[in-house]
Amino acid sequence: MHDNPLDHLVKILARLPGLGQRSARRIALHLLTNRDNALKPLVASLDQTANSIETCDICGNMDSRNPCRICNNTSRDETIVCVVANVADLWAIERTGSYRGQYHVLGGLLSAMDGTTQQDLTINLLQQRISHQTPTELILALSATVDGQSTSHVIIDHCKNYPEMKISRLAHGMPIGGELDYLDDGTITTALKSRDSI
Amino acid sequence: MHDNPLDHLVKILARLPGLGQRSARRIALHLLTNRDNALKPLVASLDQTANSIETCDICGNMDSRNPCRICNNTSRDETIVCVVANVADLWAIERTGSYRGQYHVLGGLLSAMDGTTQQDLTINLLQQRISHQTPTELILALSATVDGQSTSHVIIDHCKNYPEMKISRLAHGMPIGGELDYLDDGTITTALKSRDSI
Repeated sequence: MHDNPLDHLVKILARLPGLGQRSARRIALHLLTNRDNALKPLVASLDQTANSIETCDICGNMDSRNPCRICNNTSRDETIVCVVANVADLWAIERTGSYRGQYHVLGGLLSAMDGTTQQDLTINLLQQRISHQTPTELILALSATVDGQSTSHVIIDHCKNYPEMKISRLAHGMPIGGELDYLDDGTITTALKSRDSI
Repeated sequence: MHDNPLDHLVKILARLPGLGQRSARRIALHLLTNRDNALKPLVASLDQTANSIETCDICGNMDSRNPCRICNNTSRDETIVCVVANVADLWAIERTGSYRGQYHVLGGLLSAMDGTTQQDLTINLLQQRISHQTPTELILALSATVDGQSTSHVIIDHCKNYPEMKISRLAHGMPIGGELDYLDDGTITTALKSRDSI
């Protein structure tokens, strides 16, 4: 079964994040056995999305409007900007419904391993935005990893001309529902150090 | 972020087998951030596959040819027909390279739970095929589950007019690389009963 469009489809599906050969084959067969209910709506939706979704010029979010609904929403607090690595992280924070400020999507994290440099990220854009928008607070909502921390350091370095702007990061500690026994030492140490009085 | 083509795409992706909300979001974002390298090739491949892949009129396999390459391959033994539940199972057997006969895809298994009846499967087509093609052996390569067994019984019942045709099923026993300790009692019992002398 070589030189087969079906094999080619499986190969393309298997390259998607989280999928392998087996799950790609399963999805390809599902799509082909349910052409009207699965394949056609998927193609239509992919086409529609590709034609209508743009990257927001202000924050880097993806939306059918540019500037995006969040940047356009006048009820949101534009004095707080939350810096995230990618759109998925932005969505994760939006789902909580607990944040009413604006965002800035970096497009990744600095990484010596992956060869991601400052030029690959929107750090310059963030700096321009800070100088125009003069937010009072910048929340660095980046991963608690080496890459996240080095990216934070570089951003903090870029912000030294704005000493009046507060820079914060997400709290570190026990995840809600987490069991102490399963937590790594670093998290326990941090949670102990930043303990809250009750 | 409602009434958004992107939300709609995530919803459609999340319905695919093996995917949930989170993996669908990840894939949707990956497709949108890599339009030229991921989204466009996927849409092109889906279109091409939808237009070129057909269900084989003889065996029910999916291929860009009808009859499929397997049914058309004169070097394959047409005196043996291997009955499988779906195309994924056919592919799984083909990947082993250890079978040179033909196939018959049932399109599922009889299931009281899912409401799958004989009319939903290609059992009638199989019966017609047996009467025309008169294979010498029918291999029932169905799952070792209740549904697989009841489907086997119904097929055996339909074949009682062909007493000269051998009907076999896949051997039950220990999977290669399997550890005895992790096997269920049913498999151990079957493997003991069908033990091979060495």
